[in-house]
Amino acid sequence: MGRDRLDTVSIANRGLNYGDGVFETMRVHRGALPLWPQHLARLREGAGRLGIAVPDVDFIEARIADMVSAVDAGVLKLLLTRGEGGRGYAPPADAVPTWMLSLQPLPEVLAGLRVHPCETRLSMQAALAGIKHCNRLEQVLGRAEAVRAGCDEGLMQDLAGNPVCATSANLLVLRDGRWRTPAVETCGVAGVLRAWLLAQDLVEVAAVPPEGLADADALALCNAVRGILPMRALGAREWSPHQATDELQARLAMAYPMFQHAGSKP
Amino acid sequence: MGRDRLDTVSIANRGLNYGDGVFETMRVHRGALPLWPQHLARLREGAGRLGIAVPDVDFIEARIADMVSAVDAGVLKLLLTRGEGGRGYAPPADAVPTWMLSLQPLPEVLAGLRVHPCETRLSMQAALAGIKHCNRLEQVLGRAEAVRAGCDEGLMQDLAGNPVCATSANLLVLRDGRWRTPAVETCGVAGVLRAWLLAQDLVEVAAVPPEGLADADALALCNAVRGILPMRALGAREWSPHQATDELQARLAMAYPMFQHAGSKP
Repeated sequence: MGRDRLDTVSIANRGLNYGDGVFETMRVHRGALPLWPQHLARLREGAGRLGIAVPDVDFIEARIADMVSAVDAGVLKLLLTRGEGGRGYAPPADAVPTWMLSLQPLPEVLAGLRVHPCETRLSMQAALAGIKHCNRLEQVLGRAEAVRAGCDEGLMQDLAGNPVCATSANLLVLRDGRWRTPAVETCGVAGVLRAWLLAQDLVEVAAVPPEGLADADALALCNAVRGILPMRALGAREWSPHQATDELQARLAMAYPMFQHAGSKP
Repeated sequence: MGRDRLDTVSIANRGLNYGDGVFETMRVHRGALPLWPQHLARLREGAGRLGIAVPDVDFIEARIADMVSAVDAGVLKLLLTRGEGGRGYAPPADAVPTWMLSLQPLPEVLAGLRVHPCETRLSMQAALAGIKHCNRLEQVLGRAEAVRAGCDEGLMQDLAGNPVCATSANLLVLRDGRWRTPAVETCGVAGVLRAWLLAQDLVEVAAVPPEGLADADALALCNAVRGILPMRALGAREWSPHQATDELQARLAMAYPMFQHAGSKP
């Protein structure tokens, strides 16, 4: 099962043809992946949901160590597909999964995000919700909208108009002194950092209605690469920096020093 | 824009990472693609919807001719992705689309299909419905169900339970002497052969309610590789061969002799 790291894949790869795979995008910090156990758990969950075997984890971990041991800061992407071939959509019984690693530079950390309310909606699909699969055209279309609007990110709603998440981050909404995040049972991704915030009881899952953002006290986004990022604007609505966001960032940085940054401070 | 035919792609290809592309699966007959104009039209529609530039068509056509001129019968797949890279989901402004051709043998023609009613539903996404994009996990899951059930194909419903199409074919339903096919405005693929049948007024678009299949006079599937295929069974419900299906196959074979086959005849 263990293969050497790939730089190319066959055009028969099912990841290329059908998005038939899952991935993780992970922060590298001082030669390691501090959130690796959580990423691995989600990878297993996603692969299990799709019926893709997870290759030898010891071997993958050894290759990851080779790649990141000398890296101070960066992003490592792990992509796992069902492998090659099969006649049409039917997964081949004997498919050998393909996995790939690629190292990318750390993106710049923005002090406050300008977020575009996307017109592209997230469809409801319980079989795929939560996992980080490779069918990402909705996110591609949403992010393209955000870029056209000159924004840093795009906020996506479900078909009923309820805010769910950004194209590549989960949504945190502060109301009445509590941070809330929408459920991801029918669409959206169950982010690794979102899961940590929930487990620490710093955030709770709660429905956010369509009108539930404009009058929020503060909004933030979170993901496992950039940590917690305050939102400065959603469309025309703007927010000032909020102490609760600073405090949430500080709690995270205590557990994971890689997320220590100037944050929302002016 | 024109590149030589590829056998591998970079792991940075957006088709592999996000299913960010479209494809066509086309019947080769006596060294040509009789339905090429229709496939090209749908490819342009899909690429346009996703904002992917269609590479030089003259060059693609020349390469297709090279590949199929000596082929009597087969299937040619054309895959077009947005190309490589970009930071996350945002489509790179300067992306050079990647296109690939691959030749496959003609699948066997079955005299009557056994079809499994899939539990996996088709989500509703108007931005992606109708086009043949590469986000196909729903079809992969549906087809896997069909294989597990020992069936030839799987029938997929929308979230409301309305039958839409098979995993890789459109659905034709005979009632009151008229062939009907469900709309593909919110999910499903606008098949090339379905479009031809509609243009010939041999089939009409009509809603098919959840209970609208069990009491149909006949059911068939159609796609551009295998033509019109009668359904023999859907789950436990079975149908005998129907003259109207033979007649529809005969009309198709008159226009496209490549689809001449024994069909539903015993």
